[in-house]
Amino acid sequence: MSKDQKRFFLTEAEIPTQWYNIQADMKNKPQPILHPKTKEELKAEDLFPMFSQECSRQELDQTNAWIDIPEPVRELYKNYRCTPLVRATGLEKALGTPAHIYFKNESVSPVGSHKLNSALAQAYYCQQEGITNITTETGAGQWGTAVSYAAKVFGLEAAVYQVKISYEQKPYRRSLMQMFGAQVIASPSMSTRAGKDILTKDPNNQGSLGTAISEAIELAESTPNCKYVLGSVMSHVTLHQTIIGLEAEKQMALAGEYPDIVVACFGGGSNFGGIAFPFMRHNILEGKQTRFIAAEPASCPKLTQGEFRYDFGDVAGHTPLLPMFSLGHDFMPANIHAGGLRYHGAGVIASQLLKDGLMEAVDIKQLESFQAGVLFAKAEGIVPAPESCHAIAATIREAQKCKETGEQKVILFNLSGHGLIDMTAYDNYLAGNLHD
Amino acid sequence: MSKDQKRFFLTEAEIPTQWYNIQADMKNKPQPILHPKTKEELKAEDLFPMFSQECSRQELDQTNAWIDIPEPVRELYKNYRCTPLVRATGLEKALGTPAHIYFKNESVSPVGSHKLNSALAQAYYCQQEGITNITTETGAGQWGTAVSYAAKVFGLEAAVYQVKISYEQKPYRRSLMQMFGAQVIASPSMSTRAGKDILTKDPNNQGSLGTAISEAIELAESTPNCKYVLGSVMSHVTLHQTIIGLEAEKQMALAGEYPDIVVACFGGGSNFGGIAFPFMRHNILEGKQTRFIAAEPASCPKLTQGEFRYDFGDVAGHTPLLPMFSLGHDFMPANIHAGGLRYHGAGVIASQLLKDGLMEAVDIKQLESFQAGVLFAKAEGIVPAPESCHAIAATIREAQKCKETGEQKVILFNLSGHGLIDMTAYDNYLAGNLHD
Repeated sequence: MSKDQKRFFLTEAEIPTQWYNIQADMKNKPQPILHPKTKEELKAEDLFPMFSQECSRQELDQTNAWIDIPEPVRELYKNYRCTPLVRATGLEKALGTPAHIYFKNESVSPVGSHKLNSALAQAYYCQQEGITNITTETGAGQWGTAVSYAAKVFGLEAAVYQVKISYEQKPYRRSLMQMFGAQVIASPSMSTRAGKDILTKDPNNQGSLGTAISEAIELAESTPNCKYVLGSVMSHVTLHQTIIGLEAEKQMALAGEYPDIVVACFGGGSNFGGIAFPFMRHNILEGKQTRFIAAEPASCPKLTQGEFRYDFGDVAGHTPLLPMFSLGHDFMPANIHAGGLRYHGAGVIASQLLKDGLMEAVDIKQLESFQAGVLFAKAEGIVPAPESCHAIAATIREAQKCKETGEQKVILFNLSGHGLIDMTAYDNYLAGNLHD
Repeated sequence: MSKDQKRFFLTEAEIPTQWYNIQADMKNKPQPILHPKTKEELKAEDLFPMFSQECSRQELDQTNAWIDIPEPVRELYKNYRCTPLVRATGLEKALGTPAHIYFKNESVSPVGSHKLNSALAQAYYCQQEGITNITTETGAGQWGTAVSYAAKVFGLEAAVYQVKISYEQKPYRRSLMQMFGAQVIASPSMSTRAGKDILTKDPNNQGSLGTAISEAIELAESTPNCKYVLGSVMSHVTLHQTIIGLEAEKQMALAGEYPDIVVACFGGGSNFGGIAFPFMRHNILEGKQTRFIAAEPASCPKLTQGEFRYDFGDVAGHTPLLPMFSLGHDFMPANIHAGGLRYHGAGVIASQLLKDGLMEAVDIKQLESFQAGVLFAKAEGIVPAPESCHAIAATIREAQKCKETGEQKVILFNLSGHGLIDMTAYDNYLAGNLHD
């Protein structure tokens, strides 16, 4: 056991007071988002019917590198931030690697994941703009839980459409959302036209993220003072997540190190951008050579095998057209346990950065991800979310390369959430019932 | 929302390096523990067959107020300690109380509760003494999880006898223990004589803590290099838990306050003693007037309705005779969700302190405990363990008294664990299916 310091914290006064908007510093800006019907460049006003006005403006802001975090959001961040930066000495020892491995532990948030960083911001802006109701979809449930809690804090009503099969298979997630006061509806439901259409054709339909999104958007558009909130993909969501990397940068300085490699799992890109972009600005502005690795599931390989093109964000094709790496908006990924990574496209910022060679991507098979997760749990005592297991697997690959070469690289990864509410997945893995 | 500081941490250098043994400072020492057969005063050597030698000595130490925490245990504490001291501003606001409420958040440990503080110490001493196997019982599963993880860290084999009904009803707990590498056996089992006797008479027996203890002790006694480890009641377990209060004392100083009231839930007394005893020493030695409140379940009211007498620690009557408040070692509490509080007796130290008026006790009904837990979850975002809900309920009672009198008392309680793996209990509560 090392006598080195294990965990690093900032004081409340040291917690960053602004988010970092990498769009302002990118040499090649993301290509414009297009209106789905007119195909013209989208303006912030075009997003107002769906999102809060402030989030709509943040979405398209390519000018301001630093955005103030509103005071009430900063106060709520204090409930769980700064999150620990941890030297993974147990994992290093288990691997026998000379690499120094650090992880940022976002699992300590009240809802168990990084998702709260943006849910609080989005709920706050809605409340400020006189919105009374918010709605969203959730698959695995991490985002739905964050929205339920954020709504409660700001006195908003939340309606969460949860994919029916998850609603039934993950009752603990549903209970958690209900405890925070949210209305949780199994999707497809009879509460929307989209849901009714599906159920009248197929009464046993088990739901999908695509259907749940359609129901949530329909509810938002048909309800006064109701907005739709989204947990990833969009640039404003990633902006809110940069608090992760900005804290980590200061904490790494406390540890006296700077990362050679930054790793995060990748669904829509918000936890990846959250930890990576603050460090990437030093690559862009000062010529640092840090590598950034996005770890995606092999079953949904938009970064490693997708095509860079304009595509819709949802299955039904109702969203604006986004310039992104995509497997096609009608791509149906296999039903892996990392539900948060089952998305066909990548956010527009990460897509541009990948195109320009500023970041890399690797794909991880399901068994490798759980193998990594169990090794990490035994070594560090924390059960990672199935999504986070992908980041751990990619980290282990790099640490093992260091073992071969003898290089003492510094690797930082984001532990985006814990897996305590996903133990069924581990059960299946440990029983040998999971397959790639 | 308050602009006051919300959370308080110590640096690693400030984490206490010794545990506090209140026995040394008590004016009336606990009465001697007696040998179950000879009824003579127990010596440390009499405990060696069951526990590690070092824990046996700590158990009976009435001389040394400060016991060094071994360096390897301190290193492992760093993985999650110091735990946050949190000002419960959300709860204060929800109650509209002038009281200042703080909680020590032990739920952030890798296994989700304070139990790890002692499991690590006990596993370490076993390893140092050449022990290769440890065994224990678990009901709700918090202790079994801590033992599984601690055994893994120190390279020991762990066998956990889990009460059969919990084994079947709480599969997530079982998975967690198995992930850490423990063998988990539903009790009663065919692996011991005690288990076989029960199963041949009653093949459908659902198990009890008493049966699981009998099986674990039998395994320890019949296996070379195997010791039994215990999660509460015994004085050495409480000793290890004093890290909670010792940290909290320094953290309260950072907050510029000192508690008027300290509250914890009470099963066998280890989390209560852990947070209370370090503060209580200032009552004993310097005449401070802090109140200490143990919150027990109304269904198992040993402190408020039990009798102070010599009694066995287990149902079968195999343990030494302990001078304690007890409901009788054959008392069968109702099957409440706070499994960790379903124990018939109180540790000998707390029993003596209660007898001498140095602490108080209140009993809390199940519905009041869950009502408090849900209020806390909504206000602070953390789902408390059903056990911890009792401490929250007692805290709320005191905070409401402050509201009536206008007194700005400082209340500190211990959040002994999270309830993320006990959501079934909350489900039942929210659905109106729980009764007192």
